[in-house]
Amino acid sequence: MIYSSKLIEDAVREFSRLPGIGKKTALRMVLQLLRMDETDVDEFTNAISRMRHEIKFCKTCHNVSDSDVCMICVNPGRNRAQVCVVETLRDVIAIESTQQYSGLYHVLGGIISPLDGIGPEQLNISTLHDRVKETGVTELIMALSPTIEGDTTVYYIARQVKDLPVTITTIARGIAFGGELEFADEMTLARSIAKRLPIENYVTLK
Amino acid sequence: MIYSSKLIEDAVREFSRLPGIGKKTALRMVLQLLRMDETDVDEFTNAISRMRHEIKFCKTCHNVSDSDVCMICVNPGRNRAQVCVVETLRDVIAIESTQQYSGLYHVLGGIISPLDGIGPEQLNISTLHDRVKETGVTELIMALSPTIEGDTTVYYIARQVKDLPVTITTIARGIAFGGELEFADEMTLARSIAKRLPIENYVTLK
Repeated sequence: MIYSSKLIEDAVREFSRLPGIGKKTALRMVLQLLRMDETDVDEFTNAISRMRHEIKFCKTCHNVSDSDVCMICVNPGRNRAQVCVVETLRDVIAIESTQQYSGLYHVLGGIISPLDGIGPEQLNISTLHDRVKETGVTELIMALSPTIEGDTTVYYIARQVKDLPVTITTIARGIAFGGELEFADEMTLARSIAKRLPIENYVTLK
Repeated sequence: MIYSSKLIEDAVREFSRLPGIGKKTALRMVLQLLRMDETDVDEFTNAISRMRHEIKFCKTCHNVSDSDVCMICVNPGRNRAQVCVVETLRDVIAIESTQQYSGLYHVLGGIISPLDGIGPEQLNISTLHDRVKETGVTELIMALSPTIEGDTTVYYIARQVKDLPVTITTIARGIAFGGELEFADEMTLARSIAKRLPIENYVTLK
């Protein structure tokens, strides 16, 4: 595309570096910013700049945080005996948004994937071991991808903490609420039959 | 969604103000920016900030510009007798990207639309009249939307310049190259038959 303005061209190029943003979408965003008040655009750029420069990672759970320890870890209302182990902070946001979980988290920063060159030492696994050992964690809830890499990571962590008094559980897999049986993949459907529950365990989400 | 970080929350909110960006897409972009180097993020915010604060509008054609007169208007290689009248600068970018047009432009900033409260006085029409009168423009090529508002604008401009020695043309409407007849709308198809061309006029795009 030919822009007739270097300023527009630069802004479009910067936007197209973001995931899923092509040149046309980038141009639409740039033209929208051009129509906005200068103060609103300043708010936009400041929010992004501040976010990148001031963000910290929680010393305890490795979640993003505005200070050294994150809002979840300092909250006295959370159950300190439960730790949900997740890959990334997107998973924390997804689980927090359900408002159904009151324990803590541990963000691994990925999963063990030898093909991508990611071994246990690149992940926050040793700090998880120390955390279980030093604080009174009684349950590790594994909320990792249902893939070979995810399963490998679960087994690796299980081996690491096997001498500690902690129970390891995984989140339930099955047919989603509102999901149609015919569109479910075979593995999910097969496991949801194999792991069927007595009717008294059947609860619907509020 | 619940973010556990005010910095992330602010950045997501700012991104969701852009057109077509929901909370999930905004979060994906924010997390991408979080993974990028601080200097790259600075380049991103600087490009946007500079674009908004330093952009000018060309005094002659009202296109966006880095200086008082735009790159197209100052280019001595352009045909000064032809002016293509468009609604917005997106149209300029689209036509420039074809690399087939060598005349100048005039950006109206919209089209006459009484329902939206846009009359001729809100648009750059009086400057177009002056431009035709004072410079040697011999042809106005109307490249406006094929809607009632677009047609109204074409007729209004034609009336404004009717005493001046200028020809008014409109861009050709018809079936797109590579377009399937069966998917064309009825009006386009009907007009493309009514305005059929002798075979010697048939040229394919390089």
